[in-house]
Order: sequence, then structure tokens, then C-alpha cells
Amino acid sequence: MRLVVIGSGTAGSNFALFARKLDRKAEIIVIGKEKTMQYSPCALPFVLSGKIPKLDNIIVFPNEFYEKQKIQLMLDTEAKAIDREKKVVITDKGEVNYDKLILAVGSKAFVPPIKGVEADGVFTLKSMDDVKKIKAYIEEKKPKRAVVIGAGLIGLEGAVAFKELGLDVLVVELLPHLLPTMLDKDTASIVQKHLEEKDIEFKFGVGVGEIIGSPVKAVKIGEEEIEADLVLVATGVRANVELAKRAGLEVNRGIIVDEYLRTSDPDIYAIGDCAEVFDAVTGERMLSQLGTTAVRMAKVAAINALGGEEKFRPVFNTAITELFDLEIGTFGMTQERAKREGIDIVVGKFKGSTKPEYFPGGKPITVKAIFRKEDKRLIGAQIVGGERVWGRIMALSFAAQKGATVEDIAYGETAYAPPISPTIDPITVAAEMALRKFK
Amino acid sequence: MRLVVIGSGTAGSNFALFARKLDRKAEIIVIGKEKTMQYSPCALPFVLSGKIPKLDNIIVFPNEFYEKQKIQLMLDTEAKAIDREKKVVITDKGEVNYDKLILAVGSKAFVPPIKGVEADGVFTLKSMDDVKKIKAYIEEKKPKRAVVIGAGLIGLEGAVAFKELGLDVLVVELLPHLLPTMLDKDTASIVQKHLEEKDIEFKFGVGVGEIIGSPVKAVKIGEEEIEADLVLVATGVRANVELAKRAGLEVNRGIIVDEYLRTSDPDIYAIGDCAEVFDAVTGERMLSQLGTTAVRMAKVAAINALGGEEKFRPVFNTAITELFDLEIGTFGMTQERAKREGIDIVVGKFKGSTKPEYFPGGKPITVKAIFRKEDKRLIGAQIVGGERVWGRIMALSFAAQKGATVEDIAYGETAYAPPISPTIDPITVAAEMALRKFK
Repeated sequence: MRLVVIGSGTAGSNFALFARKLDRKAEIIVIGKEKTMQYSPCALPFVLSGKIPKLDNIIVFPNEFYEKQKIQLMLDTEAKAIDREKKVVITDKGEVNYDKLILAVGSKAFVPPIKGVEADGVFTLKSMDDVKKIKAYIEEKKPKRAVVIGAGLIGLEGAVAFKELGLDVLVVELLPHLLPTMLDKDTASIVQKHLEEKDIEFKFGVGVGEIIGSPVKAVKIGEEEIEADLVLVATGVRANVELAKRAGLEVNRGIIVDEYLRTSDPDIYAIGDCAEVFDAVTGERMLSQLGTTAVRMAKVAAINALGGEEKFRPVFNTAITELFDLEIGTFGMTQERAKREGIDIVVGKFKGSTKPEYFPGGKPITVKAIFRKEDKRLIGAQIVGGERVWGRIMALSFAAQKGATVEDIAYGETAYAPPISPTIDPITVAAEMALRKFK
Repeated sequence: MRLVVIGSGTAGSNFALFARKLDRKAEIIVIGKEKTMQYSPCALPFVLSGKIPKLDNIIVFPNEFYEKQKIQLMLDTEAKAIDREKKVVITDKGEVNYDKLILAVGSKAFVPPIKGVEADGVFTLKSMDDVKKIKAYIEEKKPKRAVVIGAGLIGLEGAVAFKELGLDVLVVELLPHLLPTMLDKDTASIVQKHLEEKDIEFKFGVGVGEIIGSPVKAVKIGEEEIEADLVLVATGVRANVELAKRAGLEVNRGIIVDEYLRTSDPDIYAIGDCAEVFDAVTGERMLSQLGTTAVRMAKVAAINALGGEEKFRPVFNTAITELFDLEIGTFGMTQERAKREGIDIVVGKFKGSTKPEYFPGGKPITVKAIFRKEDKRLIGAQIVGGERVWGRIMALSFAAQKGATVEDIAYGETAYAPPISPTIDPITVAAEMALRKFK
């Protein structure tokens, strides 16, 4: 069995490692454009800020680690085309034939067609190279004011990094609030307030019309010119679908796969940022584009490419971030998206403390839990607080993954100790709030 | 409707509050021996150590809070008997008739019949009064060396408090390791090592035969006399069943109730430490005696006493504690108990880090997950680590409460961010370890 992986990122590298665990003899070949195997793209903002001291630190394993496991690496190599008839990948360094092919070709930063976006001092934050360039630019030009376009996860984490490096920071977001796919306006406003207290400025509902100067001197928002000597474009990513499309595979916004992660060609799998998955709430195809999803897809595709039959489960897109002293956790459906998609929901929301009142050091925490009216199931949650948000979003997500209803959470068992959490946990209270509305 | 509650602790106080939320008109009367309503018994070790500055802080609400909600308080009052025929509680301050009676009479510290156990300087740690007495004794006698009898939660939390107050501490446990009902020997040894590094000493598999002197001067273990000028007896609690027994209710180790928390008399409910619940793993009756269980029972009993039909769910006894720099979380079946009870299990265990390797500050964490062989279900877990144990035990517990299998955890969605958790979470890896053994 010859497994060929295109892509040496999180999905591709993990696929190779999982496949090797499952099969000691299979030939495993990874074709990758970069010179190294997987690194953590989510870690880039922390390299930028200096919290992670060295860029190379975020490379998960050295190339030798893979080679020792008899994973053949064809790095610094570009896959140009796939001949599905002959089962061959055509690269700039020759042809590679396969029994099963795994597309793990990832995504690229989406850069909107803003006038001047090619200017010196305008960056994306998607690759190790991006970080190198930003760091060199900061070193050389000593910029004073950064404008971040886009208030998604990478935009905000980038904004925090710039602030920590001593820059003034303005975040510009076309939509009405920050983290627009993850949070509703009410929970987003808590995050916004916290970031504003740390002197990050925001403009919502407007776009950058033009970037002026090269090196950049200003951005234009409406008629207003705003001083900026560094611009970060963080307006999302797009799945790399071109190779699959040229090979005649079915492609939507991402490469289309079935429950077993097979593309429209049964000998070709697609995993990670380039592939669509199923939404656990709506059942529809979606792009997840989280590192955890990439790893989980790799695990399932490895089983299936080696002859197994494991379904990849629909995805809630459980996510967490930390911005200064605030943790933000989310998964699933937001109230705003439910409204857009016409899904009837019941919302439970509670603002409490992370510790019992009598224990010093508790911090405010807001839990918003979203239940589907039809079957009372937990279909989404947003938690924002000073600590222990992660545990609560993990608990709610695992409950939702098992089909938990509002009663399951309201009557659920939590772990309590005075220095850690209250006897009646905020997640339970939020569910109770919703439960009362059901009655 | 006249609801009479005997017991002003966590279960009784919460019952009164929940019942009032559900019914604005019902008469609610709480009969309690103490002078105040609920306080947090779990907080007592932290008052002892001084982390919670004042004893009164742990009283959850002042009496006026209940009175404002038209909850009638008969405090400083002892219920002597129940006349079930007449539906009357006989107290030392007169008779109180009821429509529904709720027994929330709690538990008392179990003190084994050790010679000299009545000596000055020997304490339990179950009530506010206990803390007052210990603090006064420490103030007056300036003891140097504490012996703690029993390595359960209260014993260890007490030992940590004494250590933080500057005493030498020895913990003596009859069973072979600490936290014997919550952990197995392997996970317990991690906790023991940490406590020993903090200079707490242990003796296992032996009991204290005699307490010498009053005020105490030493304890005798076998033939050895060990110096001690303070002794804490922390050998568990016993349900207060006498009142129920005298009233002719069915009683086992605790008061027997059905799924609706009704005793053998349909007009009498029992909740909290005094009542037995159903074990989520074995289906058998058990004593839970956790604060969270008391609150959850109160909630369900309030619904039912007011005419509802809500079942109280079987209990996993999810618990968490923090001992110095270590968090310990558990629920459900241990490996040792499974062996004793003849339950076939498959264990997955993994030692990893709480953060990705490249992110500074990650701490060791060990996850032990226990699955039932028969149906692959998660029936227990033990997690010991430097941080974020609570979130993991919450996630696994909620998954188990919904009947999660080994696949549900191994393929489960976790929330990842570099400063918070690894892409592949230790709980997932532990489940994968177990999954491989199933195959």
C-alpha cells in the first residue's frame, strides 16, 4: 500500500503519523511545498508577541522524526497536477504514483482587493514567513500605529500581539461586532470592552477603502484618512481547491468529501483546511478550518485509507482563545446565525463568578447557551470570562457532541471545590434560565 | 401547601430557595439546629488555612435573605420526632405540621473508637464550630506537629492547611494509598509525591491505636509512639438517619429514597448527605455526600414536592480538589473498585503536558480513563496535573453522563489554543490508548 499525502501542514503531517501507527509497512510519502513538516499556525501571533521565544519552536517535530518512522519526505516540492487515471501526482521534481492519495493542501490567507494592499508594510499572518516579515519590518521601520483589518480570531490575536509590542492598534471590521462568526453582539461587547480597556481601538461596520503610501502611511475609511504604518490583513482564509478542481474532483468552497472523508474519487481523500465537513447543528457542508479538526480528520482518514470504515463526525467548531486577561470559548450556533437561518432557539444566559462568593479572587464570567426549540438540544454556547472558560466550553461541547438537552445541562453534575468553582456552576444556571423559557 | 424542611445546611437551604422560585405562595418552613442557614462545609479547610479570611464569609446568605423571600426560619431548634400519622414534626420549641416534609438532616463526622480520642487537641473538621475550636487551640497552644487520621479529601485539605500554618504534618491512612475511594494507587502516588515534596509525611496501611495525653502529646501506631500536639480525625462522615429510623422510614446507610427522592412515606422526601442516591455506574444505592449532589437533590425534590415529576439522575460523584500546586479531578469507578466488584474494564492512561510543547509554562498532567468492557462506556476517570484538570474532568464527566463510549472521547472535539491546551488533548490520547486495547 502506497499512501501519498500532498501537504505537510497539520493535516498532512498528522495523517502520516497516524497511518504509520496503524500500519508499520505501508509506504507513506509526504509532498510539501515548505521545507519543514507541520508547525502550529495558531501559534504565530504568540511568536509575533514574543511569548513563544523562537519561531522554530513551533515546528512540532524535526524532519528526522518523520524519517525515523519511515515516512518519506518530498519537501520543497510542489504538486502541479494529479493524473487520476494513472494514479500519479505530477510535481516539479518528478512523478509520484499512489494507491491512495490524501489531499491536505490547506488554505491561504484571503486578501480582499483593497487599493494599495500590495504596499510595503501590509501583511497577512498565516505562515512562518509572514511572522519573519512582520518582525523584520518592525525591527527596521519601528512602526507606531497598526491597523488590523478583520476582527476574527487571527485579527484579534494579532492586535493583542501588536499592543504587547508597544504599538497603537486600531481594528477595523466590516461586520457589526468582533468575532462575528463565533459570538453574538452581547458577548462580543464584553470582549470589546476588555480590549478597549487595554487601549485597542475599534471601528465596526466599515471597511478599509484604500491603503495609502508604500511603505504604508495611512488607511482610508470612508472619507477619513487614518494614520497607519503597519497594516495586518486578517480577513479569513480560503481553502486551496485549485489542484483538486483541475483534477476534476467535486469542489465547493472546499473540496467535497463524504462521511469517510473520500472525495468524489474513492482513491482520494481530503482533510484539513482544504476540505468541507458536516455541520453538527444543521447537517450541511461547511468549512471548519481549525487545527483540531485537521488532526481529527487526519486520524479518521488514516483509518479509512488503510481499509477501515470510520465515519468522521459532524463538527461543532469548538474553539477557545485568550486575549489579555479574558478567555473566550465558543462552539456551534450563534443567536444571530440562528435568526438568519430561521432556526427556532431558546437562549439561556447568566453572568456569575468563577469562584464561590466567599472565596477571594473569583472573576466575572458570562455563559450564553443556545438550545434548539424543536428538540431542546444544546446547539451552541459562548462563554467569556476571566478564568476557567476553557473547562466550561469543553464540558458543554462534549455534552452537545452527545446530544445533550437543556435538562441534561440544568440537572448535570459539575465538579466543585471552593478555590476552583461555585457549587452551582454558571453553566447550570444558564441552562436553568433556558429551561424556564421552555415551560 | 406547607413545606417543612428539617435541616438548614446546603440541601435544606437550597431546597427552600428552589421551592420559593417555583411557587410564590407555598408556606416554606426551615427547622435548623444551627443559628444560621447554609454555609459551605467544603470551605472549612480554607478558613482554617486563612485563605478565606473570615469564618462568617462562608455563610452563603444571611438569614434575612431567606426571610425576605418569605421562608420561615425556625433556627436554633431541634427536631425531636416525626408523627407521620398526624403529619407533624415535634421540636424542642413546639410542633410544626406539614403537607410535605423534607429531611435534609445531613451527616456527622465519623469518629472511630480510638482510645484517647476525646482528649484535648483532637478535632474533626466538619462544622464552623470545629474550625473555631482548632483556631483557638492553635492560637493558645502553638502546636508544632499535627497528625491527620485519614487521607480522604478533608484529611488532605486539612493537612495542607496545617502545613500552610507552619506545622509539621503526618497523615495516617488505614488503606494502602491516599484518596482511596477516588484514585487508584498509580494516580494517588503522583499526589503523594507532590505532598511529600511539600514536607507532608505519610503512613499507609496502619491505624492510630491510641491517642496519648490530654492535651494530646503523641499518637501510637503499632508499638511506635509518634509525637503530636494536634490530631485531626478525618475518617469520613455518617448520614444522620436516627430521626428517620425512629419515624419508621426505610433506612440503610442513608435514608432510602426512590428516583423522585421520596422516602418510603410518599409525603416525606430526603435530600443531601442523609439520603442515598443511585450510582450511575452500577445502578446500586450509594451515599454521595457531595455539596453538588445536595444542591442537585434540592432542585429535584423542590419540583417533586410541589407536584412535579422529575427524576433525580444517578450520580458519578464528580469531584475536584487543589492541593498546593496540583489539581486532582475524579468521577465514577476506579480500577481497584472495578476489580473488587468484578467489573471488566479497559483502562487508557496518558501522561502529557497541559500546553503544546512549544508554549512556555506547560505542566505535567496524567489522565486515566476507565471504560466498561461490555459496552465501551466511560465509567470513571482520574486526572492529576498542574493546571486545567478541572476542565478535563468536567468534559469527561459530562460525556459520561450522556453515555459516551471510548470512541466518543478518542474522536471527540476539544477546544485548542496554544496558551491553553495542546491540539491533541491528553484526554483524547488516553481514550485512544484504551481504544487500541479494545481492538
